[in-house]
Amino acid sequence: MAKKEKLSVEPYKGVRDFYPEDQAFLNYILATMREVVERFGYAEYHASILEPAELYKGKGVENEEIINDQSYTFLDRGGREVTLRPEMTPTVARMVAGKRRELGFPLRLYSIPNVFRYERPQRGRLREHWQLNVDLFGSNAAAADAEVIAVAYSVMIAFGAKESDFTIKLGSRNFTDSLITKIGLDGAQAAKFRRLLDQRGKIPENKFMEDLATLGVALEMLSPEKPPKDVAEVLSILTDEMGIGNAVFDPGVIRGFNYYTGVVFEVFDTHPDNSRAMFGGGRYENLTALFDEEQVPGVGFGMGDVTIRDFLAVRGLVPPYTPRTRVYLAAASATSVSAALALAGELRAEGIAVAVDFGEKKLGDQIKAAAKHKIPYVIVVGPDEIAKGTYVARNLETGGEAVLTKEALSEFFLNL
Amino acid sequence: MAKKEKLSVEPYKGVRDFYPEDQAFLNYILATMREVVERFGYAEYHASILEPAELYKGKGVENEEIINDQSYTFLDRGGREVTLRPEMTPTVARMVAGKRRELGFPLRLYSIPNVFRYERPQRGRLREHWQLNVDLFGSNAAAADAEVIAVAYSVMIAFGAKESDFTIKLGSRNFTDSLITKIGLDGAQAAKFRRLLDQRGKIPENKFMEDLATLGVALEMLSPEKPPKDVAEVLSILTDEMGIGNAVFDPGVIRGFNYYTGVVFEVFDTHPDNSRAMFGGGRYENLTALFDEEQVPGVGFGMGDVTIRDFLAVRGLVPPYTPRTRVYLAAASATSVSAALALAGELRAEGIAVAVDFGEKKLGDQIKAAAKHKIPYVIVVGPDEIAKGTYVARNLETGGEAVLTKEALSEFFLNL
Repeated sequence: MAKKEKLSVEPYKGVRDFYPEDQAFLNYILATMREVVERFGYAEYHASILEPAELYKGKGVENEEIINDQSYTFLDRGGREVTLRPEMTPTVARMVAGKRRELGFPLRLYSIPNVFRYERPQRGRLREHWQLNVDLFGSNAAAADAEVIAVAYSVMIAFGAKESDFTIKLGSRNFTDSLITKIGLDGAQAAKFRRLLDQRGKIPENKFMEDLATLGVALEMLSPEKPPKDVAEVLSILTDEMGIGNAVFDPGVIRGFNYYTGVVFEVFDTHPDNSRAMFGGGRYENLTALFDEEQVPGVGFGMGDVTIRDFLAVRGLVPPYTPRTRVYLAAASATSVSAALALAGELRAEGIAVAVDFGEKKLGDQIKAAAKHKIPYVIVVGPDEIAKGTYVARNLETGGEAVLTKEALSEFFLNL
Repeated sequence: MAKKEKLSVEPYKGVRDFYPEDQAFLNYILATMREVVERFGYAEYHASILEPAELYKGKGVENEEIINDQSYTFLDRGGREVTLRPEMTPTVARMVAGKRRELGFPLRLYSIPNVFRYERPQRGRLREHWQLNVDLFGSNAAAADAEVIAVAYSVMIAFGAKESDFTIKLGSRNFTDSLITKIGLDGAQAAKFRRLLDQRGKIPENKFMEDLATLGVALEMLSPEKPPKDVAEVLSILTDEMGIGNAVFDPGVIRGFNYYTGVVFEVFDTHPDNSRAMFGGGRYENLTALFDEEQVPGVGFGMGDVTIRDFLAVRGLVPPYTPRTRVYLAAASATSVSAALALAGELRAEGIAVAVDFGEKKLGDQIKAAAKHKIPYVIVVGPDEIAKGTYVARNLETGGEAVLTKEALSEFFLNL
């Protein structure tokens, strides 16, 4: 038979494979997020990655660049236009509008969906990433904006960050809109102005100044002496009532999405090697009105796993890998496998995670396999151990050994 | 302004929205699966839903019906053909081949991906579902087949099933192949024969008998006096060593995928209203050979969430919904909100999940919101409570009340 051409082992471009160590790190990120947001009273929801394409089109949700150039949109076999969600906010607005009468408000929801964008893969940008989405619906109170920002802050702290590691910058769409009115910018100019503000720091400062002048905006107009009212109220709750020390007003913070209406915020990494906006969010008043006569105000944020990984890596905050499996039972010979299976069954009944070798390789190779899996302990099961009823638990990292009766084994591993 | 047409609140056809109660049930299913498979020493992996389309095409993995008629396959903006994974096994084979030298064997891997098929939505069949995938690579031992089946069995038991609720039926591809050789079926006839075996129970029995006769196969050839050797070995370990009482030989079990080579199995629901194969798996010797010169034997199974839901529902095994949030702090007036926020912060620091109302509605409506969220306790925070430092925790289901000092509150909720 002709030798077949082999398939590539690489994943699709711009997405990731998660081998056990990678998955453990992702699980750590997800578990840390969950723990914090649930303490703030948020309940988890979820939806399919498949959404009708119209959800992202021309009804106010759109961010033109994303839909026209960066979405995965295709026709299904029934001729329906489908999009792999590029973000979660339109989905949660759809769901809230769909059950508005049954849901209680204020409504606190979170999800950690994977979201998709067709873009050139680069640092901090992949075609698929996981994104914590936290949203609070049905409140106009400044305390709601503050709570959502406090959740973002608390997630950062739970990852081991110090206040000096990041800054929370608050801007205001109201402030920007009032500037636009004051200067008398028309629709196209206003859009250009908003985009320009969003790009500050990403484009050269002289280019920024030049474009600002072209629009007829003086730099000092962007730096009012005191924050606008909505930002001041939220900042006061954050600083005075919640004791958060790294939240500031920044009139340049605007956020990319069109649907924001009030206070917006971005969390900036203060590390010189990673200085940039990591994630953000804000208030949106009108999103559920796309689906429903009655609109429900919302405030929320999205936090992606890729930027958080970069943040944790730069600061040495990545936790070491420890597999859930506590012990590997090696079989001294094929005849010991039955005894190993029986012992494994007993330990599992006590809640201990145990892997068994089926004795198809030499003992040394079995132990090497356990070491490759980074399982901390190995026990060799052979005729001697079975006869005596005592086992040697060997720590593969330290080489230390504990001699234990069968009865003492589960206590030993449960107390690790 | 003209009234805009509203967007639909419905999700894309054949997929599901998960509101908090739905998500809690999904999380229960996922957590139960995880807990069991990790006790057997399996480590979690993951990958993107996006895979190169060639992974499912013409190299031995293919199930023609699935790829030609039921996959979501499209061209990305760079002209690459991409498929939303219809199953996980080709992905895990790709990943194992990709790091074969670094991974230790036997290698135990699991994942709970969402998988996609374009098909007519019906009972037990949706376009997207979650599927536990358990795979053991690198062992030819019958104990490996038995372990994988024991994992499936243990997951069912962990869901509250009794042995009498399901039957594990083992078949053998070796047995079927030897029959095909004995009868002298050619390639097309053999494929027809395998498909016919897989459809038994789904098509009328007289149609089955007719097609069987056309192929020249006598019914009694399908019912040998004793199980073939591979099945007998696995059954002996399951029954005699592991004490599993509901595993039997069934020569008609064959599984749909072409890549199975040895023992295959299916788990059948014994309930008269739901009598059918719920899920299954088996041994596959050659999958990693698609990518790699060296092949690694594998054995595994896939268990979908939709069929498990039906199973649990029919038997009353669906757990009641209890949100993670333990207590709702209602604000007697706008001036009490600060105190409520402060109290919430203190309780959260103790690890208690607390939601706060911002006092924008009447007290009665705030309590109604808590009840809609199914949060078990409400505490009203008002001037009296703040002055006295004592709070009344009211159980919304029973109406029972506990009067507690601020200091006693966290202990009360932690001990719930």
